[in-house]
Amino acid sequence: MEFNKVTRGANRAVYDEQTVYDILDAGFMCHVAFVHQNMPMMIPIAFGRKEDVIYLHGSSKNFMLNAIIKAASTCICVTHLDGLVLARTLFDTSANYRSVVLHGKAELITDEEERRQGLKIITNHIIKGRWDEVPLGTDPQLKATMVVKMKIESASAKVRAGAPEGDEDKSNLTWSGHIPMAIQAKAPIEDIKFKEHTEHTESIKWFIDKYGNEN
Amino acid sequence: MEFNKVTRGANRAVYDEQTVYDILDAGFMCHVAFVHQNMPMMIPIAFGRKEDVIYLHGSSKNFMLNAIIKAASTCICVTHLDGLVLARTLFDTSANYRSVVLHGKAELITDEEERRQGLKIITNHIIKGRWDEVPLGTDPQLKATMVVKMKIESASAKVRAGAPEGDEDKSNLTWSGHIPMAIQAKAPIEDIKFKEHTEHTESIKWFIDKYGNEN
Repeated sequence: MEFNKVTRGANRAVYDEQTVYDILDAGFMCHVAFVHQNMPMMIPIAFGRKEDVIYLHGSSKNFMLNAIIKAASTCICVTHLDGLVLARTLFDTSANYRSVVLHGKAELITDEEERRQGLKIITNHIIKGRWDEVPLGTDPQLKATMVVKMKIESASAKVRAGAPEGDEDKSNLTWSGHIPMAIQAKAPIEDIKFKEHTEHTESIKWFIDKYGNEN
Repeated sequence: MEFNKVTRGANRAVYDEQTVYDILDAGFMCHVAFVHQNMPMMIPIAFGRKEDVIYLHGSSKNFMLNAIIKAASTCICVTHLDGLVLARTLFDTSANYRSVVLHGKAELITDEEERRQGLKIITNHIIKGRWDEVPLGTDPQLKATMVVKMKIESASAKVRAGAPEGDEDKSNLTWSGHIPMAIQAKAPIEDIKFKEHTEHTESIKWFIDKYGNEN
């Protein structure tokens, strides 16, 4: 993985691989940008990561996945909004966040075993352990699914955290500070259309533990 | 605003303007995708909206803003992750979300009054009322800020909500359902480096009311 040098806001740039992985692993939704007929296109999608490879999946007819496997370069971004920073001027008002922008060449996975491994990586990235709890689906469903990998060729990461900067105007007494924000899981809602109540599995507990409390 | 026809996952497509605006107004972070030297690029940034115009701002040296005002087309995406959908097969496992993908032509705002209006729209989109509570900044700071607008030419919106679909396999008793998720604000952390404690302003109360409770 190469790191792109951040020129604007260089004080917020991050250049170590583990921080990039931590930001990627903190969530499971990314945005994928690609060029289609010279126009920029972008789609949000769930992803998985193992080492320096990002895995995506979808219908074999998925427009974005079919476009990126033909493209020379794909851009993937993962952003976590960590809060709003309220200075006593609007100029110093900001957001706390962690973001990673990746570039690489997306490739269709054709090998059956590698396809399954890719789906396992995506599943367990989203909700660890779910792979072992429920079946994948039928053979026709699996055939209608495409799995794509993108080795990370280059990365840019930026992190801002904490209180306002600047903001030394002592004549203004307006409240200033920051308001932390985070994506939180709420109480799971069981689907009992087709079965009786059953207990939370280990994967559900892992997810709730990662993203919030049952409240 | 034109609507792009969604072909894949057409059952999740949305074609009314008010739903698009509601999704845009539910948050304040977007991703901006653009083409740079034939490669896709993407950056997260805060935005504001008034009617069918998106407003962005940043340093006058901001790479992305300078790129998009020269580009024929810019893509902006706003996504809210609303939950994880856990079916009893991985095939039917999904996410609940609301997302809007916009295209338009980004333009630099040069008129001073329109620049200020753009900054006001961005500020009050993020945190309503803050514009009236704190000053904008100094004249040199304002000069070093660029304000960009993009009239929405076309939009695609997709929404998925609720329980798993498919999932009729009665032989599998594993827990299934969905786990709602939302971005939540936590207790504000006051900055008392330069001043004594002061009370929350109306804008802070608005923000906490919108994104969560003080907990």
